[in-house]
Parts: sequence; C-alpha cells; structure tokens
Amino acid sequence: MKVIAIVGYHNSGKTTLIEHVVDELTAMGLKVGYVKHDPKGHGETDREGSDTFRLRGKTCKRALLSPGEVTLWEREWSDLMKFLHERFSDCDVVILEGFKGERWVPKVVVGELEVEGVLFRVESSEEFKGVVEFIKGMEDNL
Amino acid sequence: MKVIAIVGYHNSGKTTLIEHVVDELTAMGLKVGYVKHDPKGHGETDREGSDTFRLRGKTCKRALLSPGEVTLWEREWSDLMKFLHERFSDCDVVILEGFKGERWVPKVVVGELEVEGVLFRVESSEEFKGVVEFIKGMEDNL
Repeated sequence: MKVIAIVGYHNSGKTTLIEHVVDELTAMGLKVGYVKHDPKGHGETDREGSDTFRLRGKTCKRALLSPGEVTLWEREWSDLMKFLHERFSDCDVVILEGFKGERWVPKVVVGELEVEGVLFRVESSEEFKGVVEFIKGMEDNL
Repeated sequence: MKVIAIVGYHNSGKTTLIEHVVDELTAMGLKVGYVKHDPKGHGETDREGSDTFRLRGKTCKRALLSPGEVTLWEREWSDLMKFLHERFSDCDVVILEGFKGERWVPKVVVGELEVEGVLFRVESSEEFKGVVEFIKGMEDNL
C-alpha cells in the first residue's frame, strides 16, 4: 500500500487536487482510500460540500480523524453478523435499531409492530428498565 | 457479546428507549455499541438531532448501515500507521489530506506552506497529473 499526504494552507486546493488524482488512479484500476485529518474537530462528517462528501463515490473507503473520534465510511457490507464480528467485537452489548428481518437477533418491539420472534414488547420508551433487565439476563449470542 | 434489536414503527420511541438503556448499561460498566439500520438510505450520518448523533458520546462505537455504504464512528485512535494498517489495508493507495506532522509519510504540498520532508510541490490543483506520476513511481511504504 502506498500512503501519501497532500498538505497546504486552507483553501489552497488540496481537495480539488485529490479529486483529480483519485479519478486518475481509479481509472488505472487501483483501489484508493482517503483519510482527512481534522485536528480541531471542525470537520463535518457527511454534509454536502464537505471534503469527505466530495470524495464519496470516488474512493473505496474514507475516514475523518478528529480529536477523540474516527468516522469511517466503507462502501460494502452484506452480512450483519460478519460486520459485527469484525467491527464491534470489543463491545459487551450491541444495540441494533431496526433490522427486524435478522432472525438470529432477539428483538424488543416498541408499540404495535408485528414481528416474528418477538421476545419482549414495551408500550413506550418509559419502560426502559425492563429492557435493561432483559439484556442483563441474556447470554452472549455472538 | 450480546446483540439485541429494538424495532417498532417510525416515531414509536425506539431511539429514546435506546438512549435510556445505553445510559443504564454504561453505568454498570459495560461497553455498548449502537448500529442503526438505514435500508432506504435516508439516514443522516452526523447531523444534530439525527439518531446516530443522539447516541454520540454515550456509546463506544456507532454505525449506520445504508445501501452500499457503512458509516462507522469509533471514539479512539492514536497512531495513524496502526489505524491505516487495521482499516485501509485493502487499498492500493491511501491519500491523506493534512497530517503534515507525520514524518514517515511522503508529502505533496499545494502552494507555499513550509513543511519538513516535502517531496513534491505544486502551485495548484491543475497540476494533478504530476502528482499521479509521482504516486505511480512510489514504492509501497505501508
């Protein structure tokens, strides 16, 4: 892997240069990643017109490195279980929002929605303590 | 690792429930991750008030899974070289924007900025073809 940094003053044209360079390298069949340094934490992570947004669709992978936070964009994912294994294995608990079609995941339903394999149903978010107890009683499932 | 999904109709209170649950689990000393499914690609990735933004600071890691794109937020990074090894090793080329303090990375400077170890200087983004040639001639450095 080749790593190179494009540096220069604010508004010197760094991102425009990178757009052109990425287009050329991609046309040669290379997979190109982009990492933006955001040392002051002002970086907007996915707003239209932001630097990382401009490289969207051109690169195979983008990241913004801010103080105390990494934002990483990848273009592909297929299997949720594999994704969680690779990216979230250092967590004790992972809470998914949505994914009602994933049969292997136990589900808490808020409200009336009909879902297969429901394990716990609450009427509103006020019943969160019951959900906490439910999670405490769960065995590891990944 | 325990994985659980919170499901329900739009505006049923899923994210509010998750905020409360994460607070409780974190208070018990657990590391909690959050993954939001965005099957229609409408998810705003870091806008104030968006679901992923509301879980910022509460979780150790967050992700938004949209069609053809994953956005992943992690709270810690220290060493750039290690980060690139772990996250970008499937790329042929990684273009950094900024990071002028990273001595091991060859640099292209746009404009007048004085930087140690400059290898290539361009006046503007119009000179991108020279940068492409420079990158083509580089050896792998990571």
